[in-house]
Amino acid sequence: MERKEISKAVISRLPRYYRYLGELIEEGVERISSNELSSRMKVTASQIRQDLNNFGGFGQQGYGYNVKYLYSEIAKILGIDRQHNVIIIGAGNLGQAIANYTNFERRGFVIRGMFDINPKLIGLVIRGIEIRSVDDLETFIRENNIQIAALTIPKTKAPEIADRLIKAGIKAIWNFAHTDLVVPDDVVVENVHLSESLMRLSYRVCNMQEKTAAHSPDDLILFCCLFCLCSHCHSGPFH
Amino acid sequence: MERKEISKAVISRLPRYYRYLGELIEEGVERISSNELSSRMKVTASQIRQDLNNFGGFGQQGYGYNVKYLYSEIAKILGIDRQHNVIIIGAGNLGQAIANYTNFERRGFVIRGMFDINPKLIGLVIRGIEIRSVDDLETFIRENNIQIAALTIPKTKAPEIADRLIKAGIKAIWNFAHTDLVVPDDVVVENVHLSESLMRLSYRVCNMQEKTAAHSPDDLILFCCLFCLCSHCHSGPFH
Repeated sequence: MERKEISKAVISRLPRYYRYLGELIEEGVERISSNELSSRMKVTASQIRQDLNNFGGFGQQGYGYNVKYLYSEIAKILGIDRQHNVIIIGAGNLGQAIANYTNFERRGFVIRGMFDINPKLIGLVIRGIEIRSVDDLETFIRENNIQIAALTIPKTKAPEIADRLIKAGIKAIWNFAHTDLVVPDDVVVENVHLSESLMRLSYRVCNMQEKTAAHSPDDLILFCCLFCLCSHCHSGPFH
Repeated sequence: MERKEISKAVISRLPRYYRYLGELIEEGVERISSNELSSRMKVTASQIRQDLNNFGGFGQQGYGYNVKYLYSEIAKILGIDRQHNVIIIGAGNLGQAIANYTNFERRGFVIRGMFDINPKLIGLVIRGIEIRSVDDLETFIRENNIQIAALTIPKTKAPEIADRLIKAGIKAIWNFAHTDLVVPDDVVVENVHLSESLMRLSYRVCNMQEKTAAHSPDDLILFCCLFCLCSHCHSGPFH
């Protein structure tokens, strides 16, 4: 009778549902059909129904979804209906950006402490959060019931710090260091690899430019006369 | 004869291949089999072969992959064998973190300018990059051949700025604002929604805790005596 295993793809979409439902609540919308939600979110209505069916549905035929109910149920599923105590290791720009982002707190992620090795940063206070020495890491984790650690440090330091975190009982690492951490099975790591995101953007824009170039009349004869079915290739000055 | 359409899943894995190959080069490794790469990357060898076959392979039976060649080919595919001129809109902590991250430059992403509306920030210089007023956005884009814009601004401002960027000719937006931008078909947006990443982490750690709880002997009778096949349920003091 364990909870049904949900696919990664569905899980990765849940926060987006949560965001849209939050916006609907702000707009005063009380219920919404999968079709309306579909046109807002630019995913198919059947995808929405399938995704939400993973958790038992919540929708009623002819009525649609109760926005507040669905919002709170998704919050429960995501585990953001409770408080998570978070620390940030690495108090540079990225660590400070995270500490300054008050929206995380609204979702139940409360930043309890920040840590660094830089003596110039230790002792500073960011939005009420003191930056401490990493020497105090283990004691702080144990005394403050910390569940999540954000790693905003260079990749060379990340494995050692991750080991210390895990030994101190941390089960969730939000990893911004550009390396894959090796962790035990009962520890989860969510990676935010910014370089990789930027490379995907680069791929997509280069790919788009190639497509556009291949479809411009000047290149048509060379590239796609025989195979392509697009309108450029079947009309215009070269055909 | 257009380039074969590659699945999003494959594209999203390419930067990771690129990172591992870069590390192999640093270690002086000249060639690697899909099996060796598999054990490093913790993906199956058949997955690796399938992924790289999308681009014509590069591997030779019995020899494996030539690391430098594969590295440079993936760079070409990702479009990081050339220079991309980047601007950052929003010079807060997150914008400054990106500006300070020299690794992006090593991948060909050169930050040309930063923009903000805050008079206290305008005129400051971050790693040689001047922070300018957003009033100068369009002129700067046209005069500096900018291809990519990183949006590190609040979500309420993002749609208006995105419209201005697109009108000025930007085709690639790296969006950190917590909203989905509506853009024309020839513009690509890569989202980095940090809140959503944190919620996925929360889901995964809560799910892991539930599993662990369901498998601890104390809860066994309540949760999984009848259905579960795990070793706890079929031995131990409660059975």
